[in-house]
Amino acid sequence: MKNRLNSIISLLFFGLTLSTEAWSQTQNSTKMTEQNNSALFAKGDKLPDTYFTGNAFLTPLLAKDKNNDFVMGSVTFEKGARTNWHTHPRGQVLIVTEGNGFYQEKGKPARPITKGDVVNIPENTEHWHGASVSTKMVHIAITNYEGDTNVVWLKPVSTEEYSAVNKH
Amino acid sequence: MKNRLNSIISLLFFGLTLSTEAWSQTQNSTKMTEQNNSALFAKGDKLPDTYFTGNAFLTPLLAKDKNNDFVMGSVTFEKGARTNWHTHPRGQVLIVTEGNGFYQEKGKPARPITKGDVVNIPENTEHWHGASVSTKMVHIAITNYEGDTNVVWLKPVSTEEYSAVNKH
Repeated sequence: MKNRLNSIISLLFFGLTLSTEAWSQTQNSTKMTEQNNSALFAKGDKLPDTYFTGNAFLTPLLAKDKNNDFVMGSVTFEKGARTNWHTHPRGQVLIVTEGNGFYQEKGKPARPITKGDVVNIPENTEHWHGASVSTKMVHIAITNYEGDTNVVWLKPVSTEEYSAVNKH
Repeated sequence: MKNRLNSIISLLFFGLTLSTEAWSQTQNSTKMTEQNNSALFAKGDKLPDTYFTGNAFLTPLLAKDKNNDFVMGSVTFEKGARTNWHTHPRGQVLIVTEGNGFYQEKGKPARPITKGDVVNIPENTEHWHGASVSTKMVHIAITNYEGDTNVVWLKPVSTEEYSAVNKH
């Protein structure tokens, strides 16, 4: 069941059913119709409430292939939006491209993150990331695979947990 | 000799001798002293004339480690600057973050690239990338490894080759 859920969210999260050509077309068309001078990528499609709180969006950038053992996408978190708590079996790299937000590992203080920050998330480490309560945050996510799995989703970040981080 | 050259340029190109902590410090300090509102990353240090024509600069972003089988850096090409012809044994992904330039594979027409473009460079394919003659170009490079090798450098892109691409 856990594996099935992971497969489903992998499909939802990074559109792995698209062919390379479809990816390229998606990318070009979203770029040409939506990109403006300040945003690096289009906002993309809304991510599911099952794994995200608030309004989060994804533009897929690259599918896993024979050379790249990762998927890559641009994720936009509107004010107040964040991932659920989750882990990655082989870690994930975030590149913050716009705005301000937080990265927090379970049991540790949240780390404020801002445009130009790179976060190297360790394997099998429970964490979340998202916008602050008052600012959007956009990051590129490079998510490594272990076999067919790149993420294990856990519980939402509660209002209490999120408020505590934003209070400081 | 080729392996030795590759090792040397790997060190030059992505500063792999730095510890994770040193990388983080470098990144924070360059960001805080040089970043402005429009640039995503600092320009970094000039890349060697041996492998680049014109003024190209590198800010290292991430070292290869147990989860990430790649290095990542931000490369700034001033007007007219470009890589030598080269190949990657397991390919490379470029994310253009600013400006305009070209990506060209040997024997094919050059592809104009601009902010928001992603280029998935195949393995063992001779190519170059760089700015146009009249505009800068900045990209993130994610370079996969095969063993200890991530790049094989070849001849400079000649003035004739570069002019032909810029003429169109």
